[in-house]
Amino acid sequence: MTTEQTHSDRMKALQAEQQKKTSEARDPGRGLVLVHTGNGKGKSSSAFGVIIRALGWKQTVGVVQFIKGKWITGEKQFFMSFKDQVDWHTMGEGFTWDTQDKDRDIAAAEAAFARAADMMQSGAYDLIVLDEINIALRYDYLDVAAVIETLKGRSTRTSVILTGRDAKPELCEYADLVSEMTEVKHPFKAGIKAQRGIDF
Amino acid sequence: MTTEQTHSDRMKALQAEQQKKTSEARDPGRGLVLVHTGNGKGKSSSAFGVIIRALGWKQTVGVVQFIKGKWITGEKQFFMSFKDQVDWHTMGEGFTWDTQDKDRDIAAAEAAFARAADMMQSGAYDLIVLDEINIALRYDYLDVAAVIETLKGRSTRTSVILTGRDAKPELCEYADLVSEMTEVKHPFKAGIKAQRGIDF
Repeated sequence: MTTEQTHSDRMKALQAEQQKKTSEARDPGRGLVLVHTGNGKGKSSSAFGVIIRALGWKQTVGVVQFIKGKWITGEKQFFMSFKDQVDWHTMGEGFTWDTQDKDRDIAAAEAAFARAADMMQSGAYDLIVLDEINIALRYDYLDVAAVIETLKGRSTRTSVILTGRDAKPELCEYADLVSEMTEVKHPFKAGIKAQRGIDF
Repeated sequence: MTTEQTHSDRMKALQAEQQKKTSEARDPGRGLVLVHTGNGKGKSSSAFGVIIRALGWKQTVGVVQFIKGKWITGEKQFFMSFKDQVDWHTMGEGFTWDTQDKDRDIAAAEAAFARAADMMQSGAYDLIVLDEINIALRYDYLDVAAVIETLKGRSTRTSVILTGRDAKPELCEYADLVSEMTEVKHPFKAGIKAQRGIDF
């Protein structure tokens, strides 16, 4: 048997395996809950990438930003020109070290979550991104049990992505997918500035 | 000292630390090289999220897809309506188990890389995404030393993101940033079908 035949045979076996997996997979009949966590880059940006997929299929998307505040980002400028399809709410007051006021941080987190809860129950969205909500959970600005209850009560149509480092174990337990972004090498560590179009 | 004062003081110290880091960071004066690897979800989608950031700042973007072939994805449908700003090339022939022809896979990878090399040298792009190129490198359809040489010779204006699992160590060594997406929990494993708007 030549190498070429071996490759072809191996690939045929792999194809059969993939086809079996695909044919056995079931449609959950509801939106999924995805958690993007870890200390590496890509948690929010991959949620924005999933938004693009949804928009490509003409779906309707909501975004609530729990931490990011007033500063201008490329993603915000971009999605602002899709107001028909993307309902974008920046509810954060900025980093905790900039507000320096825990009560204000808690109030901002609660207001953001109230907005998110309305959106999840409304049935008006295919996908909702709760950007950096894990940070608000980590500092106990929000109660994880209450967040999970609200996720359970969401419209069956709606998938939800929750981003931010240090995701709570209870949330990961409930989620359909958990992806951890690990920092192997980061330019900030090498003293390189955050870059427009890459980091924000 | 009340708890509130303690919080405020701690945050002031943290703020000072962050400001020091930011003021000491330098601008590299060139585009960055980023690698998104690992077995988890988010490698390609976070590259698409970075594209959104770039587009928000009116930058120009190129995409070469090394593996993905003819099938329709949300991202492709979406970016097709941004032809002025996004130069999109799907050069793959599909999964290796579908082509079942190694020579054809190699020819496709080489053609995709020739296109990518032209784009990287042209100086016409702020950001270029080489989607799933790591797969082509892993199977030695492309030579990693040649890829690194081409990256070194790119226009200084251009940042490049290379995605796909099993990134070569030599490539990670050269890159400014390496982010590893780890699968903690995946719906496919629980027998759930790939979802339109989430997975493609």
